[in-house]
Parts: sequence; structure tokens; C-alpha cells
Amino acid sequence: MSKIIFDSGISLDGFFAGDNRGPENPMGGVSAKIHSWMFNQKAFWAYLGVEGGKEDTLDGTYIRETIARTGAFIMGKRMFEEGEASWPNDLYKADVYVLTHEVREPWVQEGSTTFYFINDGIESALDKAIKSAKGKDVRIQGGANTIQQFLNAGLVDEFFIHIAPVFLGSGIRLFEGIDKDIYDIKIMEVLPSDFTTHLRYKLTKKSASPTK
Amino acid sequence: MSKIIFDSGISLDGFFAGDNRGPENPMGGVSAKIHSWMFNQKAFWAYLGVEGGKEDTLDGTYIRETIARTGAFIMGKRMFEEGEASWPNDLYKADVYVLTHEVREPWVQEGSTTFYFINDGIESALDKAIKSAKGKDVRIQGGANTIQQFLNAGLVDEFFIHIAPVFLGSGIRLFEGIDKDIYDIKIMEVLPSDFTTHLRYKLTKKSASPTK
Repeated sequence: MSKIIFDSGISLDGFFAGDNRGPENPMGGVSAKIHSWMFNQKAFWAYLGVEGGKEDTLDGTYIRETIARTGAFIMGKRMFEEGEASWPNDLYKADVYVLTHEVREPWVQEGSTTFYFINDGIESALDKAIKSAKGKDVRIQGGANTIQQFLNAGLVDEFFIHIAPVFLGSGIRLFEGIDKDIYDIKIMEVLPSDFTTHLRYKLTKKSASPTK
Repeated sequence: MSKIIFDSGISLDGFFAGDNRGPENPMGGVSAKIHSWMFNQKAFWAYLGVEGGKEDTLDGTYIRETIARTGAFIMGKRMFEEGEASWPNDLYKADVYVLTHEVREPWVQEGSTTFYFINDGIESALDKAIKSAKGKDVRIQGGANTIQQFLNAGLVDEFFIHIAPVFLGSGIRLFEGIDKDIYDIKIMEVLPSDFTTHLRYKLTKKSASPTK
């Protein structure tokens, strides 16, 4: 059965993106600081369809495992707009559901990536993504606000964070306004690395409180 | 030589304390959620001078090491006021420098804890604490705002965070408004545990930028 996951790099002070993000300034310009652990890994460049990187270490193995387990993606409109301006063709190699108010025909890319534009809410996007994933996991790709919506709707089964040893000082936090009463959380895996710390958590919905 | 350190438990969403903290409500009532990893450890209760806890695991060893390396403490006035109402006698077993605007004679406790009240800034407190520490480390105990002041003054050498697998949703964040340009940061140690993840970082001041 598909799990609903997210997998995000953050700074020590919890920022997922910098200030003033937009298509001209993806992630507010902080990607190199948060994602530096990926850049020397062959697995990362292979995913982009480019030769590059040194041999994979544990970080690269981790990247390949995450790609292999993901069967479909969901993202917010702002992340899509940033990526539309900069991602290579067929980056996701899967169906990607974009939450938007815009009505737009699916964008079928050469290869196996299709972007679908969903206007009727996160649960609708999730139903469709689960069908696309065919038993693999559905990854909530971002941005932070989209991840927060899924968390607060009680829909997330598991997540990964990668904490980079850097302060950003300001920007968009991954965890902002998270409902503290939804989940019991268990630490599943801790993988040390030179440029980040990989952490995996399992979420279980708390039993409903007895009604008074 | 003394290192200047801090060592703080936080939630997954980065909170160091909850809302409405004060002497009647230390840490905003979130201590049990953030510090649950300590409570079954003999080392923790021994520090409080009380029988309790099961045998130490790695977490207890960690507690004993941190106590052993610390020679003096610095804390903010609000943390002191919370603790004054609830800490056992002689908890710190060292000199504790309290940053305050109040003029107050030192409070010499039975045992080896003395609280000194410092009115002339963080560097003055630090000078005195380094003398007290006699080569051991000086620990900036908290609250979050006091830790932020030392971080942003470029005075911290090393820190430990313990990330509890829990969301708090709101409260006081440990890392708020941290100057991103002061330190290069290196991951020194990652210790997985059941109820928290221990992370240790080393800070080095960045070389000054060339003047234009």
C-alpha cells in the first residue's frame, strides 16, 4: 500500500527555503546551502540525466532508495512555477499533481513525466496520486505550505528530513503552525553524514480523545 | 581552555519552550515532551540529588559527560526566575551567572552552587564564568533569547541539540533571528536514541570578508 511521505532538506534553524523565492529565484537561493550533501553524489546527477558527481556514498544510496520508492508526486503551485522555469525535461519520471486554482490541461513531457493540475483540493490530488503510484509511495514534494497542509490534515505516514549544518536566519520554515495533537511520532532511522543528518520518522494518528 | 557551549532540547518544529512560560509554568509546560529521553536515566535523577530512573543507557552516559565538562553556567533572568521557584537546592554545583538588570547580592546555596547577578552585559558574564570554570566549559543554559545573544555575538564554540520526536506547534524557538554570516559549522557527532536524537556541532567564526 502506498505511504504518503515527504522528504525535505532544512537548515539548522528549520528553514526549507529562503526569502523572496520565485521562478527567478528558486528556493530563495538557498539550495546550495541546504542540499550540498547531494552535489558530489553520482545518484543526484543521474536523476537529473547528467553525468557528474563522484561515486555514491551513503548519501547517494539514500537518494536512489527515495527515488525507487516514489510512485507519484504532489506539489504546490509556487514550487511548480519555480520548477517550470528551471527543471530539466522528464525530471520526475512519474505523474506529478500540482495544486492550483488555474485550470490547465495536463502537461505531458517527453519521457514519463506528466503534470496534472488539480483544482479541487488536497484529498482529490491524493486520491489521484495514489492511483498513479500503483503501490509505490506518494511524495509530497513541497513547498513548505503544501507539506503543512498534508500534515495538518492527518494524511502523512512517514517523513525524512535532512538537517544541513548551516543557519539561514530567515526564510520559509518547513514546520510552521503544525497541529501538535494529530500524531504520535517515532524515530525510525538516523543516518549521519558529513554535510547533513538524515532523519526518518513514522507518524501514527493519535487515537481520538474520548468525547465528554 | 574553556569552550563556550550550549546544550538544548528542542521539538521537531524547533521549539525550546512553550507559550506562556513563567515561574508558575516553567518552560511553558513542555518539558515532559522535550526532555522525556532523560527521565528514565539514573544520571538525570542523580543530578537532581534524587533516587530514580533505570540504569543509564547512552542517554545517561551523555548526561554525565555534559555535567562533567561544565565548569560554570550563564542564564537569562527569565530562566532563573522560573528555576528559582522550582529547582532543588544546589542543582548546578558550580557558579551560575544570571543576566539581569536587577542589582542583587550573590545567592550562595548550601553545597557548591552560587548565583551571581550580572548587570553589565554578556561579555562581562562570560569573562567571570570563564574564570569560575577553571578550564572546564562554560554552558549557556538558556533561555532561547540568551543563547541567541551569545550565538549572534560570535561567542559560541560548540553546541548540542536533542531533537525530540514531537511537534509543539507554537512557543519559543531556539533558533530565531540567527545571523547566518558568523559561523562555519561542522557536524561532530550524531547519537541516535529512542526518544531523541543527539547532535553535536562545532562552530568556527568565518574569516572576515575582504573590505571593498
